[in-house]
Amino acid sequence: MKAVILAAGQGERLEPITHTRPKPFIPILDKPLILDTIEQIRKYVSEVFVVISPSHKEYFEKNISGVTLIEQKEGKGTGAALKAVSSVINDDFILIYGDVFIGDKSVLKQFLSEKNAILGVEVKNPKDYGVLVMNNGNLSKIVEKPEIPPSNLINGGIYKFSPDIFAYLDKISLSERGELELTDAVTMLAKESQVKVIRYQGFWIDIGKPWNILDVNKWVLDNLPSSENFGKVEENVKIKGKVVIGDGVEIKSGTYIEGPVFIGEGSVIGPNSYLRPYTVLVKNNKVGNAVEIKESVIMEESKIPHLSYVGDSVIAEDVNFGAGTLIANLRFDENEVKVNIKGKKVGSGRKKLGAIIGGHVRTGINVTILPGVKIGAYARIYPGAVVNRDVGLGEFFRA
Amino acid sequence: MKAVILAAGQGERLEPITHTRPKPFIPILDKPLILDTIEQIRKYVSEVFVVISPSHKEYFEKNISGVTLIEQKEGKGTGAALKAVSSVINDDFILIYGDVFIGDKSVLKQFLSEKNAILGVEVKNPKDYGVLVMNNGNLSKIVEKPEIPPSNLINGGIYKFSPDIFAYLDKISLSERGELELTDAVTMLAKESQVKVIRYQGFWIDIGKPWNILDVNKWVLDNLPSSENFGKVEENVKIKGKVVIGDGVEIKSGTYIEGPVFIGEGSVIGPNSYLRPYTVLVKNNKVGNAVEIKESVIMEESKIPHLSYVGDSVIAEDVNFGAGTLIANLRFDENEVKVNIKGKKVGSGRKKLGAIIGGHVRTGINVTILPGVKIGAYARIYPGAVVNRDVGLGEFFRA
Amino acid sequence: MKAVILAAGQGERLEPITHTRPKPFIPILDKPLILDTIEQIRKYVSEVFVVISPSHKEYFEKNISGVTLIEQKEGKGTGAALKAVSSVINDDFILIYGDVFIGDKSVLKQFLSEKNAILGVEVKNPKDYGVLVMNNGNLSKIVEKPEIPPSNLINGGIYKFSPDIFAYLDKISLSERGELELTDAVTMLAKESQVKVIRYQGFWIDIGKPWNILDVNKWVLDNLPSSENFGKVEENVKIKGKVVIGDGVEIKSGTYIEGPVFIGEGSVIGPNSYLRPYTVLVKNNKVGNAVEIKESVIMEESKIPHLSYVGDSVIAEDVNFGAGTLIANLRFDENEVKVNIKGKKVGSGRKKLGAIIGGHVRTGINVTILPGVKIGAYARIYPGAVVNRDVGLGEFFRA
Repeated sequence: MKAVILAAGQGERLEPITHTRPKPFIPILDKPLILDTIEQIRKYVSEVFVVISPSHKEYFEKNISGVTLIEQKEGKGTGAALKAVSSVINDDFILIYGDVFIGDKSVLKQFLSEKNAILGVEVKNPKDYGVLVMNNGNLSKIVEKPEIPPSNLINGGIYKFSPDIFAYLDKISLSERGELELTDAVTMLAKESQVKVIRYQGFWIDIGKPWNILDVNKWVLDNLPSSENFGKVEENVKIKGKVVIGDGVEIKSGTYIEGPVFIGEGSVIGPNSYLRPYTVLVKNNKVGNAVEIKESVIMEESKIPHLSYVGDSVIAEDVNFGAGTLIANLRFDENEVKVNIKGKKVGSGRKKLGAIIGGHVRTGINVTILPGVKIGAYARIYPGAVVNRDVGLGEFFRA
Repeated sequence: MKAVILAAGQGERLEPITHTRPKPFIPILDKPLILDTIEQIRKYVSEVFVVISPSHKEYFEKNISGVTLIEQKEGKGTGAALKAVSSVINDDFILIYGDVFIGDKSVLKQFLSEKNAILGVEVKNPKDYGVLVMNNGNLSKIVEKPEIPPSNLINGGIYKFSPDIFAYLDKISLSERGELELTDAVTMLAKESQVKVIRYQGFWIDIGKPWNILDVNKWVLDNLPSSENFGKVEENVKIKGKVVIGDGVEIKSGTYIEGPVFIGEGSVIGPNSYLRPYTVLVKNNKVGNAVEIKESVIMEESKIPHLSYVGDSVIAEDVNFGAGTLIANLRFDENEVKVNIKGKKVGSGRKKLGAIIGGHVRTGINVTILPGVKIGAYARIYPGAVVNRDVGLGEFFRA
Repeated sequence: MKAVILAAGQGERLEPITHTRPKPFIPILDKPLILDTIEQIRKYVSEVFVVISPSHKEYFEKNISGVTLIEQKEGKGTGAALKAVSSVINDDFILIYGDVFIGDKSVLKQFLSEKNAILGVEVKNPKDYGVLVMNNGNLSKIVEKPEIPPSNLINGGIYKFSPDIFAYLDKISLSERGELELTDAVTMLAKESQVKVIRYQGFWIDIGKPWNILDVNKWVLDNLPSSENFGKVEENVKIKGKVVIGDGVEIKSGTYIEGPVFIGEGSVIGPNSYLRPYTVLVKNNKVGNAVEIKESVIMEESKIPHLSYVGDSVIAEDVNFGAGTLIANLRFDENEVKVNIKGKKVGSGRKKLGAIIGGHVRTGINVTILPGVKIGAYARIYPGAVVNRDVGLGEFFRA
């Protein structure tokens, strides 16, 4: 059997993180989401196709191997993406959306014996998703964001299809937003064939908004099997709870760690740093003197060397913080923090949310960053500046 | 015998601390001044009357018990306050000003056997107070702030009276500032009866200005009988000098404490905090990563969680400091710090004085507060702001 | 034999450090350069003359003893300086420039047996110096900053002369910059007498620019013979590498020191300070809570008490940093940091260079100082200010 992963989205809602990496390369601890998905699905299939955007070709070629990359050259939407593999697939196959993470991977096995199937995820707030209408355990149709949800099962973005699906893709027309929607084809398929709904109650997330990067890593940290230490920990380091310390990590005296925390390989921590629960340091990070980090994901090579506070934030790769750069993560009114997503203020559902910072950003010393701010990749923040609005890609922000 | 405590003042000179609590609730370590006074006087009397302002009725009812609250509904001044209890007192009684703290409580006992008496406190600078003129160990009269003090004994605000005093209160007229002054009645009484002066050489303070809150707590800390620890202290915590650690306190590794210091119950300190001499954390406080506190009183529930310096400051209840909020406590010219008290700049007599911060204040991250500044209760300070003037009650200070 | 040290320069290029001390009093660890030079040369001579500027007379008299001070009252340049001692020298003598430091002092011995000699220092970049042209091991002439250097030996600023040199000084005329150049006289001398070139391959530096103070101390620290501890080190202090801890030093718990580091007598460090390689604390310094210092020279009595980062900086005596004062030491473009030297931007050759801060400066809290900035002696920096240009002597910088 083969598997197809749809990974062609531009990930605009995940900007600025996606300024420098395709969305499926969001890290789950130190592993990009898509590598985790591939690793899981490979247990059941002989070949994996990954549908990508031509603009991401180079990035994928450099960072992924053992799969066949297929460029989606035409059309928009999940339907158009799947059509891109129609010529290479001629048997039943598993289809997975590249931005979906499931906590309980064993559910994948259930797809193997079905001809057509869809993952139905039990959620509390179905009306924000595509909801499954069912009949006798099989799918009737998928309705998008219904006011009154017909069930609490939503479309989990994992399918089993026979090659018949391609014929349906040819029949559907563009949706209101101008995309070819795979779900339209699935609804059509469900009318004429049995599409088994595979119920799933475990952790599931579609990583669509920046703070979902925090959510998924929080879940993974909460489910760490045990502490591990492949690094060097000096005396007078306090470690509580589950903490994973990667290869070549150095933790200097006076550091205080409250797990669950993940410290990726090659990182240098301390002295006198404070890592609080749900801190993920992906790889080769530096966290230095008197720095405190809480519930944040800090990607490869990024450095927070002196006197900073970082809470509830996502920081992409190769970022360098000037001494005393602080991120606020709570509004004075303690209301939900909102973030600009594709030009609209979107509620994050979080009372505490810090900043979303793109790759290769540099901040000067004594920089102040307000809650919910996004800073574009390659931006520079002048020393002493108060960042009270989003900063564009490569912008030099002075005041 | 009965006792009367005068506690009806509005405490304007103690603003912003008195924005949210009556003056007699200034904490002495973790006990409000008035509760300490009541506890002492109860050893000698059967009933305690507390004269309060009607505007404080709710606060007193909630925070005090076992005494009779009497509202002062008419007039201004200590004389008017005492008149408020005339109908309930018909025997000799002890009278105590609610803003007076005495270090050596045993002096109270000397009042019991006298008919009329006044506490005469020996001080070095009598001309700033009401000074006692004496004759053969008895009071002749009280003179207010005399240029050339007739003695070094001042009116300590503790008296013993027979009910006769009420008759004199009816005879006196309003003073220049429009108040009915008890001292005028006492002078009249002293002319006709014996008013014994009870000499006192111990620590005495009338808590009238915000920095007196530091003074009184400093004295109490200097006289701590011994260290106590009812909390949990992690390894690698350094404790020097006398330190009281209350019930349920948690002190995390890397914290450094130089006593005398008082850490009230339920507080969480560290990691890597630095508490210097004369720090009082009243109750349920949080002092976090790399925070340094010196000679300051921090009241109930207030939090200074990250990268702050607080020196020579008074911080009321439920204040929250954004990361990196710093308080300056020394002028460039190293002159005495001055504070606005009822519209006038008043010298504090202190070379080092930080800020006076009202209840429920929130500061953003990276806030800078200048020496002698007062911040009204419920104020908000915008991130990165430099607070170089007083901030009003509930004001949103941006720059 | 006698020795003459030329120490009359005004040291303008070393401002603001020379706002409050003559150039030869630059500290080499805790010893002024000129005291080190005198100590060395005294092994070989019976009397030392130091030529000084009349404006420095008081400073020298107070800080140096056992030498004869000669004021240079007339003329400019090294030639004019040497002429100032013509009346007191009548035998062969050693001449040393007061701003020269040599790592291998044993070379001085080689001068003793020569009549006329000059130190020829092997360098990689001779064209920035006075280069020696030689003939058979003897000097032919000295050429200033030649485009194509005739050798890799430069004028090391150490000479042996017979009193004949004074006759040549009378013959030379003013150079283009209006100074009487000793090297012109030496070139003339070399034409008529043998001037032996004493080759030297060790560490040599002419301390002309502020960052040379870092260079010379770095060399000395790299050549520390061993760690020493004459102070009091509390528990939980981590010390790595070679660290010299002077008399009466107190190092508090949680401090982390990565040698080579020099901590001069009477200094108080910690708690939770971080001293990184090439930190020199000259004497009686205070480095406090959560402060990090790296590759910097901090002179006598200066205090960095709270939450600061100081990297690659030179800080003169009696400076006091407000809490949270930070110095940036890296440009966003990671280019060489430039510094204004006598009105011109001069490349420091350093990618990392912080600030150069004169004596008695005070910074407010939360001050931000940019790379390569010079702050004049006695300046005041307002709290929260961003110092993005040089600050003059005694200036009050607000924004």
